Amino acid sequence: MDVRIARTAGFCWGVRRTVDKVIEVADEARGPVVTLGPIIHNPQAVARFQERGIGTVQSVAEVPEGTTVVVRTHGAVRDELRRARDRGLSVVDGTCPYVIFPQAMARRLSAEGYHLVIVGDANHAEIKGVVSYAKGPVTVVKPGEVAPEFKAKKVAVLAQTTCVGADFERVVGQLALRHMEVRAVNTICNDTEERQADARSLAAEVDAVVVVGGKNSANTRHLAEICRAIQPRTWHVETEVELRADWFQGCHIVGLSAGASTPDWVVEGVAGWLRAL
Amino acid sequence: MDVRIARTAGFCWGVRRTVDKVIEVADEARGPVVTLGPIIHNPQAVARFQERGIGTVQSVAEVPEGTTVVVRTHGAVRDELRRARDRGLSVVDGTCPYVIFPQAMARRLSAEGYHLVIVGDANHAEIKGVVSYAKGPVTVVKPGEVAPEFKAKKVAVLAQTTCVGADFERVVGQLALRHMEVRAVNTICNDTEERQADARSLAAEVDAVVVVGGKNSANTRHLAEICRAIQPRTWHVETEVELRADWFQGCHIVGLSAGASTPDWVVEGVAGWLRAL
Repeated sequence: MDVRIARTAGFCWGVRRTVDKVIEVADEARGPVVTLGPIIHNPQAVARFQERGIGTVQSVAEVPEGTTVVVRTHGAVRDELRRARDRGLSVVDGTCPYVIFPQAMARRLSAEGYHLVIVGDANHAEIKGVVSYAKGPVTVVKPGEVAPEFKAKKVAVLAQTTCVGADFERVVGQLALRHMEVRAVNTICNDTEERQADARSLAAEVDAVVVVGGKNSANTRHLAEICRAIQPRTWHVETEVELRADWFQGCHIVGLSAGASTPDWVVEGVAGWLRAL
Repeated sequence: MDVRIARTAGFCWGVRRTVDKVIEVADEARGPVVTLGPIIHNPQAVARFQERGIGTVQSVAEVPEGTTVVVRTHGAVRDELRRARDRGLSVVDGTCPYVIFPQAMARRLSAEGYHLVIVGDANHAEIKGVVSYAKGPVTVVKPGEVAPEFKAKKVAVLAQTTCVGADFERVVGQLALRHMEVRAVNTICNDTEERQADARSLAAEVDAVVVVGGKNSANTRHLAEICRAIQPRTWHVETEVELRADWFQGCHIVGLSAGASTPDWVVEGVAGWLRAL
């Protein structure tokens, strides 16, 4: 069986940058190092960090004195960051620059009187962070859902960096008809767009698709949805352990894509298993 | 045969305002009165104005000294207005306030560095006027067509006041994905929205629809398109002279809508013909 790996599979620039930073900090720090929430949404990668002594905390309140706190790629909630600084903890900001951008836009546009709409998942760390920078009303619209009705003359629309383009397009269009002014800032990151476009063409060329990455990873789940719409034989797995031979019966070529937070060694593990089949 | 007239058929607030103004001006003016282009897109109404001595010119260059120039509801091209004032002609501005708004937005947003996109008909007087207020690049996108590709970080989108909502929605969404920032100002006038919604529900309740208004009237043509999509037995006529009895074979209820520039007496003429059938 031929295995075709998407050019853009695996770590994006932002994740690689943050992962490198955490390792550097862990090597140099005198005291313990923790990340505020899982550094990336990949359980396998997080486990490796754990082995290197880099822990994960859910809030600044849990962090012992003398600890270095690393803000993960998805960013942090503003008040948590302030609490860490108020306590005099050493803070290393690993927020992806593509996430800093919507945070800054949320702050600026809501200060200018815009009602903020974010197309994304309200329970996702990135969105919780972006929302925390707003100074006025915010509505989070889940991809695929219709924006709720609300009164506002000026509306600003942002997207989760990993949002599927068509969802952003639809919500912006709907709001443009309802409100006097809609200011849409396309905060979908370039990497997301390229990876999704790559996955789309890969899915059209193969007999089955395996998407590798954390089940808690938004961008990986979106990749799987995109591939499944084109090639129904699409599976989302975290590692090769989940794969089953009967999924690939009659397949000649299998496509392989992976989320922005999936380490190369995990992708390689899956590719190896498929090649051996 | 029952005739159901849409609540919103006929003159809108803006047209009525301009028509009243022209009559007032004609009654009070010492010299001749002309309108810069047809005052409204309704040949029957324009003919009546002609009978009252109110002429139509295509450009300021044609206007004799001592003439009062009235700017029609659709507005005028900025340079023409300047030429009229430079020549010392008396100018009465009949531009609909709902058209002054996109003119002002075109000026302001292009001055702020936005590439302007207008969803509308580039050959329509209103759009020629709005475009003339821009200080930078402008792209006019015809409703139903895809916006052409162009390079710009910041894009502002306006609509012809009589644009069908769904066309504005689609173009704004498309652009939001392509450009960093898209600022959409909904310049579709309230009257247009209400009239289109009314026509939509009327078309669903009747056996045939007659839309009355100038063949050169954008808003009337849009009304006819909207009705035809729901009730294929839809006819767009300027007066009752065009109607044919066989169009209404087997019809129990006929719906009647009319454009924003259609005088009541023209609507009544059509309604009378239908009732007599």
